[in-house]
Amino acid sequence: MKTVLSGKTRELVIDTEGPVVIIGESINPTRRKKLVSTLQEGDFSYVLELAASQIDAGADVLDVNVGYPGVDDARLLPEVVSAIQDNFDIPLCLDSPNPAAIEAALRVSSGRCLINSVNGKEESLKALIPVAKEYGAAIIGLCMDDDGITDDPEKRLAIIEKITERAVSAGINQEDVIADPLAMAVSADPRACMVTLETIRLVKMKLGLNITMGASNISFGLPDRESLNTAFLTLAVYRGLTCPIANPEKITSAARAADLVLGRDDFAIRFVEYYQSRNF
Amino acid sequence: MKTVLSGKTRELVIDTEGPVVIIGESINPTRRKKLVSTLQEGDFSYVLELAASQIDAGADVLDVNVGYPGVDDARLLPEVVSAIQDNFDIPLCLDSPNPAAIEAALRVSSGRCLINSVNGKEESLKALIPVAKEYGAAIIGLCMDDDGITDDPEKRLAIIEKITERAVSAGINQEDVIADPLAMAVSADPRACMVTLETIRLVKMKLGLNITMGASNISFGLPDRESLNTAFLTLAVYRGLTCPIANPEKITSAARAADLVLGRDDFAIRFVEYYQSRNF
Repeated sequence: MKTVLSGKTRELVIDTEGPVVIIGESINPTRRKKLVSTLQEGDFSYVLELAASQIDAGADVLDVNVGYPGVDDARLLPEVVSAIQDNFDIPLCLDSPNPAAIEAALRVSSGRCLINSVNGKEESLKALIPVAKEYGAAIIGLCMDDDGITDDPEKRLAIIEKITERAVSAGINQEDVIADPLAMAVSADPRACMVTLETIRLVKMKLGLNITMGASNISFGLPDRESLNTAFLTLAVYRGLTCPIANPEKITSAARAADLVLGRDDFAIRFVEYYQSRNF
Repeated sequence: MKTVLSGKTRELVIDTEGPVVIIGESINPTRRKKLVSTLQEGDFSYVLELAASQIDAGADVLDVNVGYPGVDDARLLPEVVSAIQDNFDIPLCLDSPNPAAIEAALRVSSGRCLINSVNGKEESLKALIPVAKEYGAAIIGLCMDDDGITDDPEKRLAIIEKITERAVSAGINQEDVIADPLAMAVSADPRACMVTLETIRLVKMKLGLNITMGASNISFGLPDRESLNTAFLTLAVYRGLTCPIANPEKITSAARAADLVLGRDDFAIRFVEYYQSRNF
């Protein structure tokens, strides 16, 4: 199954058979004071710097989140989207809990965006599915609903199924729903990773969707996060993760390694190219 | 299934349910000129240094290989084994293509050793299985025979089955056979890793054995070997690898991360302990 996104002109195919596509997570105010302060001054140079460095480090899509306390992101998100698209021909993942911000950003964006995210709550489905249909956007379906987050993989699957059904009955193609099985901190729950891996397996088997995930959540509160994130990413890719949301500086080597080990990179061409481009 | 090894006094259980046990590979003359020159002078200080640093880095067992051109390892291997066991209470993995060296080393060793390795060739089976039985040693069964190395996982399994049957009919317990599914360079064959992973799956399913492997062979000839070895180790552990032969300096973090992600390290106790012991 293939999800096709695009920037101003360039198309990107996310294929359930791989290789791994990386959605760069760094345009996000969490733990980035400089992003907040520059955006508050209407200065987009730092946002463009984050875009450039992530593309250079292997990002195929950029997640764009400009939510911080007090911001009107229905005004700011479209401004930032326009600034990025004026400078880079790369598909965007519009990331906001505010449907008005998503819609405003879709209105000004070129190409084919991804909405991050639609969840199983009725208000989310009602607000965002018509918007996705109207603007021809793909959606990330997050397995969370009015009951919160379950640790039962079957129930997580059921939420993704519900979001998919609602999307399809609104005229969205099934391949334009990308599932997010949710990754939680393993420091809090020893089974957290296994629950996510099992959810990925179920979603791949039953729905065949592309799968995304904020792959670094699992290591929250622990040291040596990179070893943990790498182990989890590798297993998740093996199970069916196709487009992790992550810091490409930290994850691209591991993603290229996973593709190579899984027989998706004949004669190590992409692996070696990436290594050479980074001059490790 | 559990394979029990021991040093002079200390027991080590290798359990097919995990966690990962690390067999340190560094006492091996390949690419270690200093090891050859010191051994030639009858100086064991460097061998003991390699033992200490590997134990410090997380090795649970030490592989001992003192084969280099011109050496009489039937004389040298037992000397080195005695020197290590005089200083460290750790199980050893006796590594030589020379059955006389293995037997001589078993004669002087304390505890319960692992023989690296018995393969499917008639001469190997005939020479080593009676020795393993006599000295109560466990064996590594290498899936290679008179026809060389096959890239068919079913045929690799068949060789392990043959070695296992021969061992069991000689009175060795099945749990004392550890399978080596062989890891080959992925630069030469894009499917190399998948063949090994599938062999692991078959061996685990059909024979339930513990599984070892020289996990760094796969990255031969490629850059950024650590990313590749980590990806492969992680997937192999997921499939059933329980006791990789590797450089603990480079692999222990990844092994601890794999155990944690796979739900075998509640509340990240071993993962955090290892991190703290290494002062990352």
